Amino acid sequence: MSVCDTSNHLISVPEVTEIILQQTENFGVEEVPFMQSLYRVLKESIIADRDFPPFNRVSMDGIAICFEEFQNGRTQFKIEGIQPAGAPQITVKNKENCAEVMTGAMLPKGVDTVIPYELIEITNGNAVLKTETVKYFQNVHQQGKDRKKNDLILSKNTLISPAEIGVLATVGKAMVKVAKNPKVMIISTGDELVEVAKTPLVHQIRRSNVYTLVVLLENLKIKANTIHINDDKQELLQTIKKLVEQYDVLLFSGAVSKGKFDYIPDVLNQLGVKKLFHRVSQRPGKPFWFGKKETKTVFAFPGNPVSTFVSCLRYFYPWFKKSVGLEYKNTNFAILDQDYVFKPDLTYFLQVKLRNKNGKIYATPITGNGSGDLANLVEADAFLELPKGRNEYKKGEVFNYISFRQNI
Amino acid sequence: MSVCDTSNHLISVPEVTEIILQQTENFGVEEVPFMQSLYRVLKESIIADRDFPPFNRVSMDGIAICFEEFQNGRTQFKIEGIQPAGAPQITVKNKENCAEVMTGAMLPKGVDTVIPYELIEITNGNAVLKTETVKYFQNVHQQGKDRKKNDLILSKNTLISPAEIGVLATVGKAMVKVAKNPKVMIISTGDELVEVAKTPLVHQIRRSNVYTLVVLLENLKIKANTIHINDDKQELLQTIKKLVEQYDVLLFSGAVSKGKFDYIPDVLNQLGVKKLFHRVSQRPGKPFWFGKKETKTVFAFPGNPVSTFVSCLRYFYPWFKKSVGLEYKNTNFAILDQDYVFKPDLTYFLQVKLRNKNGKIYATPITGNGSGDLANLVEADAFLELPKGRNEYKKGEVFNYISFRQNI
Repeated sequence: MSVCDTSNHLISVPEVTEIILQQTENFGVEEVPFMQSLYRVLKESIIADRDFPPFNRVSMDGIAICFEEFQNGRTQFKIEGIQPAGAPQITVKNKENCAEVMTGAMLPKGVDTVIPYELIEITNGNAVLKTETVKYFQNVHQQGKDRKKNDLILSKNTLISPAEIGVLATVGKAMVKVAKNPKVMIISTGDELVEVAKTPLVHQIRRSNVYTLVVLLENLKIKANTIHINDDKQELLQTIKKLVEQYDVLLFSGAVSKGKFDYIPDVLNQLGVKKLFHRVSQRPGKPFWFGKKETKTVFAFPGNPVSTFVSCLRYFYPWFKKSVGLEYKNTNFAILDQDYVFKPDLTYFLQVKLRNKNGKIYATPITGNGSGDLANLVEADAFLELPKGRNEYKKGEVFNYISFRQNI
Repeated sequence: MSVCDTSNHLISVPEVTEIILQQTENFGVEEVPFMQSLYRVLKESIIADRDFPPFNRVSMDGIAICFEEFQNGRTQFKIEGIQPAGAPQITVKNKENCAEVMTGAMLPKGVDTVIPYELIEITNGNAVLKTETVKYFQNVHQQGKDRKKNDLILSKNTLISPAEIGVLATVGKAMVKVAKNPKVMIISTGDELVEVAKTPLVHQIRRSNVYTLVVLLENLKIKANTIHINDDKQELLQTIKKLVEQYDVLLFSGAVSKGKFDYIPDVLNQLGVKKLFHRVSQRPGKPFWFGKKETKTVFAFPGNPVSTFVSCLRYFYPWFKKSVGLEYKNTNFAILDQDYVFKPDLTYFLQVKLRNKNGKIYATPITGNGSGDLANLVEADAFLELPKGRNEYKKGEVFNYISFRQNI
């Protein structure tokens, strides 16, 4: 290895981020039943199909009167009819009378003001007011007050959450256009790996990274496939050749370091996948390799479990979000709650526990034994991104964090 | 309605919370394949089945030497063998020699210190050090450093997130015990409701609350059923009687107000479901009814879409979380970023937009037109819980919030 060999060159986290975000892809649009659109990205504008509310809607149970009569001093109203929710609109013919009205019902014709049952007393078909405070049009939710017919109600590129599901139902969007997700294959390599249900020999470990990646992608509603390929260059070449054709995205875990059996960069190169970078000035995840072949995108993460985990969150997630039209910038910030020293000139993804104190988000380092093994992750909530170019990070300083716990 | 009628009595949000949290239930335990356990609650202790790492694991690609030799001044080592990851441990017989070692491999016998390829030069089967800084045992992840065999690695009642999935795979838990979820039926009533795919008549609206509830429960990995029952007391009695027998939880939306066709409280009473409260001093969601029949739990939310939405998040979620063994206290706080006035003596669930500025969470009121319709919710992220007993809420004050957007 000569001094001229540039393979040791490390590219910075901000540079890498920029490259990856320039390589997003459009996977098209598909139409799905609205109840299957949760956490997918809306790809059409949703328009109000009628006014909201669609009629002057009664918002309290009680009686509806003509306000003018109240103003003229009337405090007793004969009940002329009843207006249930879901029934066609009735008419109160005599303006000295009232109708009993139910929440959700149309306001009957001939009346304009609703007085709740709590404020009246009904005897022999007559309602007597127990209040002197009545306002015109009270307890009526005016037609079109929330939205007018043809108003934009949901914008394209909205992430569909439960509130949006309710809106889709309300406007009758039984089928809805959403961003298609990429076809993703998650590939493990490494002869040391055995299946979860097996008992490993002393020199073996169980396959875990692909499963972590599968569920990290489940968060994004991507259903990924997985495969294991042995550390055999010919086998890797043949299998990956097919996978590049069949899938939009390949996610590798392992075989990108400098080891004698780390064939992945070489194999991808032979298959015409263009390397956009290899080796990032970060810990964990330094040997991260990223490349493209036309519209196909390859993320090759290092095999260390925490490297794979943080790299997926830090690089694949924003790439995917931008690809499908979502906001992808990390707007999560936390306050470091103790001094922290990290010597290497690398961006450090520090495992932290988050806590909200009076509306402020504090991050406490979970140093564990410093090994960064997956077993330590279970005590942390997030990675705090400590930028390189310095060694000391002071209590009270604010940094971006990447949370990996769902907020349910 | 006489002055002695206590049906107007409103119970406070804190009182209601306490009652509901006293009424949690245990739905038992089931064993599922670990890949189906995401966001379920672990119901067994997970123990390390071996040391982590299980052997002295090489953490850099390079050569492994005997540190004593380096201390004695040796800078050139003959390569005696190679130790790939996943291969049985080799032995370096001559302590003046070295072995090439790969990341993830066992440290060979006879050597103790790893020097990465970057810091050596290999010529004719000999490795020459290009560094003078070598530390004993460097780049070796010591056996058992993260966890010892039989150490507790995941506690009972942990919410299983992607990090935990990785741990389960690592320790070989192909099947895992998780909290069983309750059987939940979501019931809509109201003759004004038509199906999503239908075009409502002028006095009708589409059924939306049940769908919002279904997806809110999907967040908790509960697969709920739904049914619509007409506003007919006999039909309600007969159907609900069966549902109380068949399900652990009934969630109603609507028919709990004071309207003539709000039969639910009456019907539930007739079926022996004991009312624990009805009507809460909150907006929205005042007519909320809650009751029990033995182990069966009934949440009857008001039919207003936002009432149903916030009530599910504010009451059903904590009840469910406590039932399955999760932390259920709301530890989310945000800083109100403008003065806000709310006159009624009710707890107010104010719709807000959240933003993180320098690690501080600010909440901006989304007042819209004040109607609280679902269409406004899509502009908000959360409900800020403004306690009753006052009318003015000042900029800079801190309140609990309930977020309804997933943080993906």
